Amino acid sequence: MTRPSLHIVGVGPGDPELLTLKAARLIAQAEVVAYFCRHDRVGHARSIAAGHIGPGARELRFAYPFTTERSVGDVSYAPDMAAFYDACAQTLADATSAGARVVLLCEGDPFLFGSAMYLFDRLAEAIAVEVVPGIPSMAGCWSQAGVPMAHGDDVLCVLPATMPGDQLADWLARADAAVIMKIGRNLPSVRDALVRSGRLDAAVYVERGTQPEARVLPLAQAGDTAPYFSLVLVPGRRGLR
Amino acid sequence: MTRPSLHIVGVGPGDPELLTLKAARLIAQAEVVAYFCRHDRVGHARSIAAGHIGPGARELRFAYPFTTERSVGDVSYAPDMAAFYDACAQTLADATSAGARVVLLCEGDPFLFGSAMYLFDRLAEAIAVEVVPGIPSMAGCWSQAGVPMAHGDDVLCVLPATMPGDQLADWLARADAAVIMKIGRNLPSVRDALVRSGRLDAAVYVERGTQPEARVLPLAQAGDTAPYFSLVLVPGRRGLR
Ligand SMILES: C[S@@+](CC[C@H](N)C(=O)[O-])C[C@H]1O[C@@H](n2cnc3c(N)ncnc32)[C@H](O)[C@@H]1O
Ligand SMILES: C[S@@+](CC[C@H](N)C(=O)[O-])C[C@H]1O[C@@H](n2cnc3c(N)ncnc32)[C@H](O)[C@@H]1O
Repeated sequence: MTRPSLHIVGVGPGDPELLTLKAARLIAQAEVVAYFCRHDRVGHARSIAAGHIGPGARELRFAYPFTTERSVGDVSYAPDMAAFYDACAQTLADATSAGARVVLLCEGDPFLFGSAMYLFDRLAEAIAVEVVPGIPSMAGCWSQAGVPMAHGDDVLCVLPATMPGDQLADWLARADAAVIMKIGRNLPSVRDALVRSGRLDAAVYVERGTQPEARVLPLAQAGDTAPYFSLVLVPGRRGLR
Repeated sequence: MTRPSLHIVGVGPGDPELLTLKAARLIAQAEVVAYFCRHDRVGHARSIAAGHIGPGARELRFAYPFTTERSVGDVSYAPDMAAFYDACAQTLADATSAGARVVLLCEGDPFLFGSAMYLFDRLAEAIAVEVVPGIPSMAGCWSQAGVPMAHGDDVLCVLPATMPGDQLADWLARADAAVIMKIGRNLPSVRDALVRSGRLDAAVYVERGTQPEARVLPLAQAGDTAPYFSLVLVPGRRGLR
């Protein structure tokens, strides 16, 4: 009945041509365009969508209060992030209450480890929120790498590299196909878990997938540090051929 | 160096506006458009892409030799499917050898349980194949259902409903977030596995996600049969809020 007043729009992993037609249309029509970014950067989602943002659009820049400076374990992390998300949600609610077409951009797919979920959780009861899926970074990466992931009856597990190494090795031993996300400084422990689960040889490392500086190489040949935008693919075990 | 001679293009879960800009461009430029279909149907991928196929394009229709008539367990299943995929791969190789721009359409994302993978496996050594990711059906479904899936350190497992019920229940108990695909006639055993793993209450059933006849409802309220295009979402356990 009522027109949705907020669109959370996935913009894919980096290549601007991997936006959906729907995302491109909604961004072009938006009067207000919001996005997360590091305080010292332009915002990755914003640069992916740049070609579609109208010249008259108002931009809401949600700069994280901290990124790598503070770790998730710090006592102040959770309450400070919660306060940040509260403030962002309020800003968005205000923007939509004036009746404007508001879009919140999100890298990859919004509901797969996206910060936009924290705003969805805060806003979905009060206002109509429509979510537009985006190409998940893992799909951009496995397509670019030419690594077919899940065949037939394979189980695919998507694993954050932030979990303890023992647990990661255990998941890798069980899964047919796996994607390890949030690599960054966890690369040595990821390699270790792949060795222990006997899956190092099949693992492929993808950095900045679908972006101009993309790198694809066997994980065994990757160094000990990785940028934020990197992940590891372990293809499925294959059923029928 | 050499221009890729075959593009395997994901077309997303159903809504034609969920094609990527890249998919729309490649389909419009294609001289040959290939797709899988049931022998008695138009082909789902073809209907999603219909608006972009040029009037002069030649179409290659790959009709499965059987779908529900024969089960994966039958002795003749694997060799007959392998022979079918061999023939499709040969047809595609012939089409590209004439220098034409050839596109193979694929529902959702090609490398996630897509039949196109069997052709990729057969062709990738002989010809240059570029894969264009598509919106996976699960992303279309969780966006439409408004179900944020993976937060923080959640592990997401993508599970085929075709596995034995005990194994499915075991995976569901371990996973933070889960997607169960290939439901169809397995709906009763899926429900049973959700009950045994204590996750029935959170499970959401999505049928024909992003398509005009889409249905979203708590799994507990779904019937005992489901169409081919259906899946179940079990959202993550939530970390930070
Ligand atoms: C907070 S999560 C966001 C994921 C995003 N919502 C999605 O659908 O992919 C960030 C992680 O995604 C992965 N990632 C995102 N973009 C990537 C890219 N272009 N190449 C490789 N990994 C990427 C990295 O593992 C990174 O640590
Ligand atoms: C052979 S797999 C292909 C998956 C596809 N490549 C993808 O990326 O989603 C077919 C399964 O995908 C799921 N599926 C595909 N499209 C769907 C839709 N529109 N709604 C719900 N489930 C869908 C169903 O579980 C179906 O059994």
